[in-house]
Amino acid sequence: MHDARAVTFRGAGGPEVLEISALSVRDPGPNEVLVEVAAAGLNRADLLQRRGVYPAPTGWPAKVLGLEYAGTVLKAGELARGIRPGDRVMGIVGGGAMSTHLVVHAREVIPIPEKLSFTEAAAIPEVFLTAFDALFVQGNLHSFETVLLHAVGSGVGTAAVQLCRAAGCRTIGTSRSKDKLERALELGLSEAVLVNEHFSHEVLDRTNDRGVELILDTVGGAYLTENLRSLATQGRIVVVGLLGGADAKVPLGMLLSKRATLIGTLLRSRLLEEKATLAQRFIREALPLFSDGRLRPVVDEVLPMERIADAHRLLESNATFGKVVLTWGA
Amino acid sequence: MHDARAVTFRGAGGPEVLEISALSVRDPGPNEVLVEVAAAGLNRADLLQRRGVYPAPTGWPAKVLGLEYAGTVLKAGELARGIRPGDRVMGIVGGGAMSTHLVVHAREVIPIPEKLSFTEAAAIPEVFLTAFDALFVQGNLHSFETVLLHAVGSGVGTAAVQLCRAAGCRTIGTSRSKDKLERALELGLSEAVLVNEHFSHEVLDRTNDRGVELILDTVGGAYLTENLRSLATQGRIVVVGLLGGADAKVPLGMLLSKRATLIGTLLRSRLLEEKATLAQRFIREALPLFSDGRLRPVVDEVLPMERIADAHRLLESNATFGKVVLTWGA
Repeated sequence: MHDARAVTFRGAGGPEVLEISALSVRDPGPNEVLVEVAAAGLNRADLLQRRGVYPAPTGWPAKVLGLEYAGTVLKAGELARGIRPGDRVMGIVGGGAMSTHLVVHAREVIPIPEKLSFTEAAAIPEVFLTAFDALFVQGNLHSFETVLLHAVGSGVGTAAVQLCRAAGCRTIGTSRSKDKLERALELGLSEAVLVNEHFSHEVLDRTNDRGVELILDTVGGAYLTENLRSLATQGRIVVVGLLGGADAKVPLGMLLSKRATLIGTLLRSRLLEEKATLAQRFIREALPLFSDGRLRPVVDEVLPMERIADAHRLLESNATFGKVVLTWGA
Repeated sequence: MHDARAVTFRGAGGPEVLEISALSVRDPGPNEVLVEVAAAGLNRADLLQRRGVYPAPTGWPAKVLGLEYAGTVLKAGELARGIRPGDRVMGIVGGGAMSTHLVVHAREVIPIPEKLSFTEAAAIPEVFLTAFDALFVQGNLHSFETVLLHAVGSGVGTAAVQLCRAAGCRTIGTSRSKDKLERALELGLSEAVLVNEHFSHEVLDRTNDRGVELILDTVGGAYLTENLRSLATQGRIVVVGLLGGADAKVPLGMLLSKRATLIGTLLRSRLLEEKATLAQRFIREALPLFSDGRLRPVVDEVLPMERIADAHRLLESNATFGKVVLTWGA
């Protein structure tokens, strides 16, 4: 057992329920590694879990927050192939990542590219794995297709812009903030749209009335009808978040006449083998792009873990561009 | 030009607006064939078009009904490869199939298996191509998966039961009629469910709470929430019809947590190359199964084309099992 400190919360509530607690972390099994966590990215799912509306999936700590980490391997099980103490690693977990120590399965672990710091690395796993999976695995995105990206200044949005650009795809990005749109253009966004409730007019205008092949959506309910209007025949909508409401009226007539596909997806509840499969594909296909500069983590703010409540408030303000990262003190 | 007779309709209305009219059919182009139609299947889309709520797609006759045909090639264009006058053929068109003569593209034409009559062949194209495409092309059905088939006594339902059985899949079929369920069991349906508004309980009961991998749905709106409840993680719902309403509330939270895919599809509005691609795959994969008896057309009633109004009434009664076929007199 290893003494650890971790971000926990006392019952459901606002940022004031957050605290740093002492806990014990078990030894790694033969296929696992023990990681000393240096930094962890903050996600909207953490905010929802703190509010009591998004409990951790079965098998993950109910009270320890955190879905992604970057750190150093302290101990590796005897069957953990190709991974040694001292290796710098990052990854996603179903919960409990905001802990000084963490046990993870060796096949879910992603090596940190040499040129990236722990702080930068901690901003990668959730948003780049989510965007990579949604675009290329679930959405079957091909080079040269046109993609509509909502909330383009969010963590997932900033990751998706870069992944699409690296794949040779044209992107139309939406945001409610002019400033975020300008920063997304600097990241490689092809075209920026200041979003309003009839954004499909703008999208159709910019695609010769054809619509886009793929939509990566974090908004859900409120955007569903306009998303369908913005879609080309045989287009796909991948919904990765429901910030705009969980219930939606879906115009099925349009779904049929456009022969559209609506795909719901989540990373958190996936089982070990699915997460490992995704991590291995990400290592093969996306990780090299961080080394040559085609992809880079977008970090808005770095705070010490003791300021976790401030970090929650910051993310809830919707004023961030990219990720908020927390670090354990030296 | 060729003198022809065809089923037309005088404005939108009930079966009384139907009539047989004289018209001229043009000569086939170099890639086309002229077919003398012997029989044509009736479809719900014909009823909707007659009512004025489902106009023919661009490029197809607005006033001549009929979406599928079986007949004999009278004339073949010089570039129509592998097809000769005298060949027995069947296929789908975007409209105008209920005509004594019809010009179709050679690559959309499907040869009629030797042992089948024109009447049997006319019951094949729409329902078997729709089910084949929905299950295997859109729905990516694999052998040994479990499939939920709604309206299992419909034309598409009876085709889907047989295709699923031939692919080694388990089928759960629903209907409001005990009699149709019994007949579907004779066709190879694995399990029959008398449908009610909470059919997901029954489906989950029969799948150890796992749910089904694929749902082929002709009902749409009214079934969407119960369909999502009936679905296994990463399951797919292919919607091919909207008999239960075009607008639906979709519980997006369930779509995400199940990582479900909702696919809308239609054959009629597809472009030539897409229909030809589907026809050629159908010829390779499904057509041999008619010759060895694993697939057979299900014909409920055969009527002479002059009784087209009675045929419409019969299909509207929802009392049929399988297809209603119309024939041109000898």
